[in-house]
Amino acid sequence: MPSTGRRGFLKGSLSALGGGTLLAASSGKPVLAKSPPEIKIEDWNTYLGDAVVTNPYGVPSEHEAHVVRRNVEWLTASQESSVSFTPLHELDGFITPNGLCFERHHSGVAHIEPSAHRLMINGLVDNPLIFTMEDLKRFPRVNRFAFLECAANSGMEWRGAQLNGCQFTHGMVHCVQYTGVPLKYLLEEAGVKTNAKWLMPEGADSAGMNRSVPLEKALEDCIVAYKMNGEALRPEQGYPLRLVVPGWEGNMWVKWLRRIEVGDQPWHTREETSKYTDLMEDGSSRRFTWIMDAKSIVTNPSPQAPLLHKGHNMLSGLAWSGRGKIKRVDVTLDGGKNWRTAELSGPVLDKCLTRFYLPFQWQGDPMLIQSRAIDETGYIQPTKKELRQVRGLNSIYHNNGIQTWHVMKNGETENVEIS
Amino acid sequence: MPSTGRRGFLKGSLSALGGGTLLAASSGKPVLAKSPPEIKIEDWNTYLGDAVVTNPYGVPSEHEAHVVRRNVEWLTASQESSVSFTPLHELDGFITPNGLCFERHHSGVAHIEPSAHRLMINGLVDNPLIFTMEDLKRFPRVNRFAFLECAANSGMEWRGAQLNGCQFTHGMVHCVQYTGVPLKYLLEEAGVKTNAKWLMPEGADSAGMNRSVPLEKALEDCIVAYKMNGEALRPEQGYPLRLVVPGWEGNMWVKWLRRIEVGDQPWHTREETSKYTDLMEDGSSRRFTWIMDAKSIVTNPSPQAPLLHKGHNMLSGLAWSGRGKIKRVDVTLDGGKNWRTAELSGPVLDKCLTRFYLPFQWQGDPMLIQSRAIDETGYIQPTKKELRQVRGLNSIYHNNGIQTWHVMKNGETENVEIS
Repeated sequence: MPSTGRRGFLKGSLSALGGGTLLAASSGKPVLAKSPPEIKIEDWNTYLGDAVVTNPYGVPSEHEAHVVRRNVEWLTASQESSVSFTPLHELDGFITPNGLCFERHHSGVAHIEPSAHRLMINGLVDNPLIFTMEDLKRFPRVNRFAFLECAANSGMEWRGAQLNGCQFTHGMVHCVQYTGVPLKYLLEEAGVKTNAKWLMPEGADSAGMNRSVPLEKALEDCIVAYKMNGEALRPEQGYPLRLVVPGWEGNMWVKWLRRIEVGDQPWHTREETSKYTDLMEDGSSRRFTWIMDAKSIVTNPSPQAPLLHKGHNMLSGLAWSGRGKIKRVDVTLDGGKNWRTAELSGPVLDKCLTRFYLPFQWQGDPMLIQSRAIDETGYIQPTKKELRQVRGLNSIYHNNGIQTWHVMKNGETENVEIS
Repeated sequence: MPSTGRRGFLKGSLSALGGGTLLAASSGKPVLAKSPPEIKIEDWNTYLGDAVVTNPYGVPSEHEAHVVRRNVEWLTASQESSVSFTPLHELDGFITPNGLCFERHHSGVAHIEPSAHRLMINGLVDNPLIFTMEDLKRFPRVNRFAFLECAANSGMEWRGAQLNGCQFTHGMVHCVQYTGVPLKYLLEEAGVKTNAKWLMPEGADSAGMNRSVPLEKALEDCIVAYKMNGEALRPEQGYPLRLVVPGWEGNMWVKWLRRIEVGDQPWHTREETSKYTDLMEDGSSRRFTWIMDAKSIVTNPSPQAPLLHKGHNMLSGLAWSGRGKIKRVDVTLDGGKNWRTAELSGPVLDKCLTRFYLPFQWQGDPMLIQSRAIDETGYIQPTKKELRQVRGLNSIYHNNGIQTWHVMKNGETENVEIS
């Protein structure tokens, strides 16, 4: 029998309870409660619904049309070299549905025909090789969940509280299950020469994204992936092939992957020198900052998801670390005076998004909400102030500072910074 | 350094290797291999692709248009009370993308407006309650992966090898991550009376699906779910609310959930008496067969996924059990004379689909392929012969017998039964 300890959990809060709307089931027979007059009477039990395969590939409900990727028009000069953000405030669990995974392209989405696509491995190898998609599927196969975060995620927020919603401040992150061939098997097939130390993956789109990847990382856990959440990659996620580099900067996960060159030194490509580096106060440049540091964000409440009720509420958010598993997430409702440990909703996986929850009571007072992630290495997510002290004020990338939401008396929420 | 032990893994098999198509990279400079004349030269590196948010809710590549749910028109009298099957042969990993999860309805898909939707709990409770969707989201929340299998999955195959493809023989199964409120908290809120023993969930569509669920199962792990793989349920999966009954018959997972009645005896509804029961040889009826027994299927190769190459190939499939985790999957290529243990691709989760792989060499000989699942309780998936010996010949449901595919010399594959 359920304990009665939780009785009255939402006492006085359930929206449909009000004078005279319920009839007691004292007769033992099911009795329909009177509906308050403002509720439209449901009538879908009086007619047939859609036939099967009305949608051979299913689509969301029309009532979920607001759950979409969004861009910020003034953020970029063009719409092809641009970003569209994951609607984090609308999601739950730790999987990102394929159609909502953020986009970040430098020359728009290429639409590659898979039978014409090839992957070349060349450079310091015994046998340069060209693979078709069919070839790749005959190699050993692995499945793993992994978060992908762009190094520029939260980049605008270096300058202060800029964008009003977690979709915009933190939405360049997603998490799916990848299927593909571990890169080490492809390198073994080509035969990597003994003086090889670096790889350069290269994309087939017109921007031709390329980065230098150390050979150790490639051999450790990189995957040449062709599926996400069970089905083929989406075009905007690099269909038919992308590199997966667990825990590391998003642009190393080269989309529309067409070539991997093996070499003995880094190539110092544009996307790891001119871009994706940060200028320090002493004039030096922080580069080859591969690992995405531990980070977290409260998704509910947030500016796009205001509080609707007094009394019992459920705070929700996401945490992740490029160094491994999340160990703990702390939450404060009063700007850091008091911290509580949130519940992690498992499974908690290596280099994946982890969902956290914190039930709380709200009586209508203003709140300053923050979350702080700690990963299994002991790394603690820093405050923005701590981050700026170390990195200076000229950074663009790797902003994993603690985010503050200001909840106002009416439940509306805004992006703020507090000292 | 990668070992050279695997060198020549695909020796002689890589499709692009052939006389004169590769130029050795002896100069150390990257050299493009000559493309065989039949390959269309890729030119997507010469123009801009799609702008971001061309699709605010992303869609699959146009080259994946064949990856869809399918129905079998002659199977049902109408298209509303019907089935559309998951394309298992096209998927990998263990997650089913939301748009490809099979449909099984008795009166088509209801399109419910969530703000008008209510969940009532009544019957043997202290306080009958009505919840809005907002109310439900304020309760404790849980995320869990689970397979959902219709009890009629593989039902046609009781009569022999009927349907030519794993999509049709086994496609009434899917696996997603559900988010929702554990049912026990809602029951606690209503206050279940001490003589209560059963629940009756009921749907809001015109078929009004209802089943009797024992209270113990409800309290153990049932979830009132509103999200799947991170986003709202799809209309054809019961938007905005469905019951999740891990490991148990699919139709207990009532879609468009509008009411849960609490009682002291089962209701013996149509969908657990007239239907969803099996006639035994002695004339008795096998009913309340809640648990979905351990089962497996080889998805590749299969009739819709013929073998394309001699030499090295990757066999792939899925296994699951309503009693817990899959412990082992064995595969035979010669109709049961020899069995090999397949590799389970983790994580292996409780009452979820589990992906398995078996690399094998094929020289063009006919094969009789089967897989056999063993779960953590020690239950072993039976042969169809063993199943018929126990259940007789009049069953419709709970066919978890071992499936045989006959691979022919040209790689085409057909559904067969062997004694």
